[in-house]
Amino acid sequence: MHHINSVFLSGLAFKTSINGHTITTDTTMDDGGTNQGPSPKRLMLAALAGCTGIDVVSILNKMKVGFSDLSIDISASLTDEHPKVYKEVKITYKIKIAEADQPKMEKAVKLSEEKYCGVSAMFRAFARVEHGIVYL
Amino acid sequence: MHHINSVFLSGLAFKTSINGHTITTDTTMDDGGTNQGPSPKRLMLAALAGCTGIDVVSILNKMKVGFSDLSIDISASLTDEHPKVYKEVKITYKIKIAEADQPKMEKAVKLSEEKYCGVSAMFRAFARVEHGIVYL
Repeated sequence: MHHINSVFLSGLAFKTSINGHTITTDTTMDDGGTNQGPSPKRLMLAALAGCTGIDVVSILNKMKVGFSDLSIDISASLTDEHPKVYKEVKITYKIKIAEADQPKMEKAVKLSEEKYCGVSAMFRAFARVEHGIVYL
Repeated sequence: MHHINSVFLSGLAFKTSINGHTITTDTTMDDGGTNQGPSPKRLMLAALAGCTGIDVVSILNKMKVGFSDLSIDISASLTDEHPKVYKEVKITYKIKIAEADQPKMEKAVKLSEEKYCGVSAMFRAFARVEHGIVYL
C-alpha cells in the first residue's frame, strides 16, 4: 500500500509528502496559480521517465554494459475535451553506448516497456505510448 | 503538447526538468537506489492530489466559500504481478468549513472527479478511485 499526504499551501499550490521527500505542485499564472512548482499533469510524465529510467539503468548494469549521457525526453499530446488526458506519448531515450551494445539497449527498453515499468503500464491504459532511441 | 526532459544522475536517480522546475526521482536503498528523491510511482499520487486539489480550491473560491486546513490523503494498493500498477485508490479530503457549506464541498469534489481533473480521469482507466471527505 502506498500512501501520500498533500497539504494546501496558498493560491493553488499543494505540498505533498512522499516517504520523507517533499514535492510542491502548482499551476502557472495564466491558470490562476503562482507557479511555485510543476503542474500535476506534467508530474506524471516525470514519473514515467523516472520509472523507465530506473529499469533501463538497472538492466544495463546487470548486463555489465557501460554507457554515459543518458537522458529521456517525453512529449505528450492531450485530448481536446475536459477532463483532458494524455493521448499520444513519445518517449525518446538518448544514450552514448558502444555500437556493439546497441541491441542490449534495445532489449533494456523493451523489457522496461513490456515487463517492469508499472508507470508505463498505467499510461498504456489511457494513451498510446511509443519509444525511440537516439545513439549519441 | 507537454514536454519534459529527464537526465540520469547516478545510481538510479534521474533529474527531470518540468517548465523550469526540477524534480529528482530515485528508489530506496532496498531497491538499489540512494533515496535522493521520491519513487516515480508515488509521484503519480502526488500528481493526483495536486490536480484534484487545484480543482477543489478553484471551485470553492468561485463559490466564495471560506475554508481552512485543507489536506488530501491518498492510499493506493498495487497489483501483485509485474508490472505493478495501482489497483484501488482512496482519496480523503480533510477540511475545516462551515457546516452550511458542506454540500458545496461535496459538489466541488464531485465536479473535480467527473469533469475537471484529468489526472483522476487517467487513474480511472486502470484503478478504482474512491473519495471521502472528513470535516475537521
